[in-house]
Amino acid sequence: MYKYLDHINTPQDIKKLNIQELNVLSNEIRKFLVKSVSKTGGHLAPNLGVVELTLALHYVFQSPKDKLIWDVGHQSYVHKIITGRKDKFHTLRQFNGISGFPKKSESIHDIFDTGHSSTSISTGLGLALARDIKKEDNHVISIIGDGALTGGMAFEALNHLGHVKTNMIVILNDNEMSISKNVGSISNYLFDIRTNKAYKKIKDEFEHITSYIPKIGKTFYRTAGKVKDTVKYFMIPGALFEEMGIKYFGPIDGHNLDELINVLKSIKKLEGPVLVHVVTKKGKGYRFAEEHPDKYHGVSPFRVDKGITESQSISYSNTAGNKLLELAKKDDRVIAITAAMPSGTGLSEFKEAYPERFFDVGIAEGHAVTFAAGLAANGLRPYFAVYSTFLQRSYDQIIHDMCIQNLPVTLLIDRAGLVGDDGETHHGVFDLSYLSSMPNIKVMAPKDKKELEKMIEYSLKVDSPVAIRYPRGEAIVLESEDSNLDIEKWEILSKGENIAILAIGAMVQKALAAKEILLNKGINITVVNGRCLKPLDHEGLDDIIKSHKCIFTVEDNVLSGGFGSQINLYLNSVGFKGSITNIGLPDKFIEHGKVDILYDKYGLSSEKIAQKIIEEIQ
Amino acid sequence: MYKYLDHINTPQDIKKLNIQELNVLSNEIRKFLVKSVSKTGGHLAPNLGVVELTLALHYVFQSPKDKLIWDVGHQSYVHKIITGRKDKFHTLRQFNGISGFPKKSESIHDIFDTGHSSTSISTGLGLALARDIKKEDNHVISIIGDGALTGGMAFEALNHLGHVKTNMIVILNDNEMSISKNVGSISNYLFDIRTNKAYKKIKDEFEHITSYIPKIGKTFYRTAGKVKDTVKYFMIPGALFEEMGIKYFGPIDGHNLDELINVLKSIKKLEGPVLVHVVTKKGKGYRFAEEHPDKYHGVSPFRVDKGITESQSISYSNTAGNKLLELAKKDDRVIAITAAMPSGTGLSEFKEAYPERFFDVGIAEGHAVTFAAGLAANGLRPYFAVYSTFLQRSYDQIIHDMCIQNLPVTLLIDRAGLVGDDGETHHGVFDLSYLSSMPNIKVMAPKDKKELEKMIEYSLKVDSPVAIRYPRGEAIVLESEDSNLDIEKWEILSKGENIAILAIGAMVQKALAAKEILLNKGINITVVNGRCLKPLDHEGLDDIIKSHKCIFTVEDNVLSGGFGSQINLYLNSVGFKGSITNIGLPDKFIEHGKVDILYDKYGLSSEKIAQKIIEEIQ
Repeated sequence: MYKYLDHINTPQDIKKLNIQELNVLSNEIRKFLVKSVSKTGGHLAPNLGVVELTLALHYVFQSPKDKLIWDVGHQSYVHKIITGRKDKFHTLRQFNGISGFPKKSESIHDIFDTGHSSTSISTGLGLALARDIKKEDNHVISIIGDGALTGGMAFEALNHLGHVKTNMIVILNDNEMSISKNVGSISNYLFDIRTNKAYKKIKDEFEHITSYIPKIGKTFYRTAGKVKDTVKYFMIPGALFEEMGIKYFGPIDGHNLDELINVLKSIKKLEGPVLVHVVTKKGKGYRFAEEHPDKYHGVSPFRVDKGITESQSISYSNTAGNKLLELAKKDDRVIAITAAMPSGTGLSEFKEAYPERFFDVGIAEGHAVTFAAGLAANGLRPYFAVYSTFLQRSYDQIIHDMCIQNLPVTLLIDRAGLVGDDGETHHGVFDLSYLSSMPNIKVMAPKDKKELEKMIEYSLKVDSPVAIRYPRGEAIVLESEDSNLDIEKWEILSKGENIAILAIGAMVQKALAAKEILLNKGINITVVNGRCLKPLDHEGLDDIIKSHKCIFTVEDNVLSGGFGSQINLYLNSVGFKGSITNIGLPDKFIEHGKVDILYDKYGLSSEKIAQKIIEEIQ
Repeated sequence: MYKYLDHINTPQDIKKLNIQELNVLSNEIRKFLVKSVSKTGGHLAPNLGVVELTLALHYVFQSPKDKLIWDVGHQSYVHKIITGRKDKFHTLRQFNGISGFPKKSESIHDIFDTGHSSTSISTGLGLALARDIKKEDNHVISIIGDGALTGGMAFEALNHLGHVKTNMIVILNDNEMSISKNVGSISNYLFDIRTNKAYKKIKDEFEHITSYIPKIGKTFYRTAGKVKDTVKYFMIPGALFEEMGIKYFGPIDGHNLDELINVLKSIKKLEGPVLVHVVTKKGKGYRFAEEHPDKYHGVSPFRVDKGITESQSISYSNTAGNKLLELAKKDDRVIAITAAMPSGTGLSEFKEAYPERFFDVGIAEGHAVTFAAGLAANGLRPYFAVYSTFLQRSYDQIIHDMCIQNLPVTLLIDRAGLVGDDGETHHGVFDLSYLSSMPNIKVMAPKDKKELEKMIEYSLKVDSPVAIRYPRGEAIVLESEDSNLDIEKWEILSKGENIAILAIGAMVQKALAAKEILLNKGINITVVNGRCLKPLDHEGLDDIIKSHKCIFTVEDNVLSGGFGSQINLYLNSVGFKGSITNIGLPDKFIEHGKVDILYDKYGLSSEKIAQKIIEEIQ
């Protein structure tokens, strides 16, 4: 039971409260958030940081007439709570439950679906210019973190916004963090503003001068006054934005509702683009999250009184990070790169051990790849560890800067395949397709932990781009007697008759389990670990089709252009006359939910694979 | 015969000349450039603009020890001329000739292959940090245009550079142009710097104050002096870069060799990142190019005395632009977007007619797509006209902002397939693959001019993302009686027996010609216009395979994931037992050269297609 929160069902209800009541409501929302997310898991620290900001925005603006665009969107929980969804919070990120990101399908207050970083200013500008063309009258407010601001497209959008000068409000939610501690010169710049360094210095000196002014008459006074204004214009924090044609206000305490509301009310009346710099504390109000905002960025269920317990299992991320660290010890050329996710991609220890060979470039995946290509062109061996879905931002750079020149950059592609709870925007289900279409790159996916290690070792020996994709979560270890073979050759895991499943990555385990199910029904199939998709193992395939006329391909990627598609092309080219059945993800965006539920729904569980094989061979 | 140029074979030869001689050499190079490019075609205006800058860079620095990275690279002709390639200039952009872009394979002075915009700071930073790690000692100089600076990844790189603060020089070649007149607030900002607006105002006022200083004693004087420095720091042009941690110098006259050489010599000694703002005139020294730098950005062969003659033929670009203009007249929702290429994409007339519904966002393809999605989310119908190869920069945004929400944005994808002279970095041969793998988008390619118009009309009627890809050059018109059918259905152009070619886009014409060749040999094949790749015409395919057991697919796209791959997936799914032969581009980067030469080399000429069919059916 919450005194105020229980009565908040629409943004209108916020407007009935006074500042004192809103402050109590803030505390209630924080309690609600911690309690609820401790049960479901989800993004905790980002939401604890924006409680007052969200209340102030809904207090001052009229959603949905005024459009609130949440960059990335993982900080939209408070917004969801006060726009009628608090009673659904126990279903957060569960299959068929509410999403952890804004979703138009959930509420008229969610204006645009998001999930990736740095898009909100572009989106907001589109909404705003459409409003102008349609001669409508509403506010557009994009709320973007200082981390997301390092993404180049945010700058592209600011450049456009400062040029067209339409009415639009950008809220810079500055918590000094991406998921980890934020980096980059813009971050340093914002730090200087927050700590008033530049401003204070110039202000002191200027006041020293102007204290002499009365002595030298009125003319001087007037001139000095003008200069003071001009100097202030140039020296107040935010000159960087002002010079791009965007009015800057701040820094403002993002936990002071009074100040927030007053400033938002004032800037609401202004013409042209405005940026409001709001300083917030990620994790605010929950001690553990305040102390370790990175660990509490996204969490699994935990005990409120004890905080999260670190998983003891070894993930694929850690496996990759550990192997890279091991290689770095032996080889000076090994470099690790992350785009604002040192911890998530398993690079924390590498960062500690070799700070001079570790680069966090900020949320800037495009730059990360070309930067890596530059390092490689000068003789080093860079590894860019990145989530599959975010690597999509580097599509052109992989072709243009890595592949055309055949430079030895390795992409360690984490969270490939279905990622589960984060849903549509986060599944890494296109990478096999887009990477396979690029010349010169080797594309691999390990069946288990040992194979991932082997692939990373292998990548250091080859002089070309390499992409290794592996799933989210615990690294499994499968039995295998194959430890000495060429990693570019496929591995026969189980020899059967006439029917062969060719599987890649996480699907190898599913294929092996499907084989057991079929064996129980008297069907003995061959299971092949198609670990290297590019170059495709033509000899291996030639052997397989000699003794198998029913080929099944299985992948946790869209079918279009993926593992099965590559096999089809080759088998067509050699005139294969048997049957090929391609199993993979359908041509739709996959919702959120536990991975096993999704596997089953989309035909990738071992049961569904076995069932499909039975259907086809009957 | 050139007095100095004839003796320039390496950058060392430059260093022997004095300023006066270098100025004469500049004139000679301009003459050489105009004469040579008038015969071969190529990028003229950008190179005329950087003659002195290139000479000064090679005069002051030691290439290849010091690394010169040319952003985009179309302005590297002068660099090529003075690094031993002037005798090959008659082969520029010809098949087997020298490339129009930097190519490591051509010269030790070409450090990195380029072609796309905004990558040079990332590359340079990679080279520089690798140098630091290897404890080497050399300069890294990235030369980037003010147009390329609007690309977000340039900002990502500056953000990283300002943070790590290594020694690196960025030359901002400010000619107020992308290919067309540059746009954006950064561009406005640079204009203010060039014209000294902000600086002059504050300087006048400050000097007014400080003129009083002697009257009020030494203490004040010292303080005022300090303030003056600090004020200068904030107000001198370049504060935007300074605030990002990068020392700014400029603006400098990019055609004054004396000034250029002096400044470069000075900044060579500085520690940390430096940006030198050089103002140049695109097209400098050739009257026609100075007057119309956009038209002379890239040219076909022309007469030096008369300048270029505009092509009278209607291109696909103009066809698209005209149709869009026609739609805009009838429908207020129609919006045109370009990323710095209004003319190249055929939008010049639209821009004139509906300036309020036309947006040039600068070189910012990622932003362009998300901005379009924002417009669409607010009820408008945006069309983003863009070259296929540059759309690669928007890969993630197409998925994340257009497709997930199924927003009605249309991509008008120009220069798809082989583009010819620009080579590796510019062919648009991946688009069918990457677009087909994305849910919700419709993917089409017209066989000719009329079909392109029909597809654009159709796109306005559907409520989902649409991609229409068409080739560079003159729009052909094929005979067809099919004007009333559903554009999502395939078109049987010629009915034969048992053998069917399914072709897409520009390949339809080739398939028809191949049919004629085969008919002369007594083989009567069916030719199908596979104009809509997504959704795939399942019914059409079902009909085709009823009466055809030999299917050939033809596309000017990589095979991986493209037209043929989609057909393979479907035919596998229905258990097709005939043969499928997939014809398309091989898994390699395609060099530059005339499109017909490349078609023939890679098996896409009508003769080669016919030959392949004969081989397969025998």
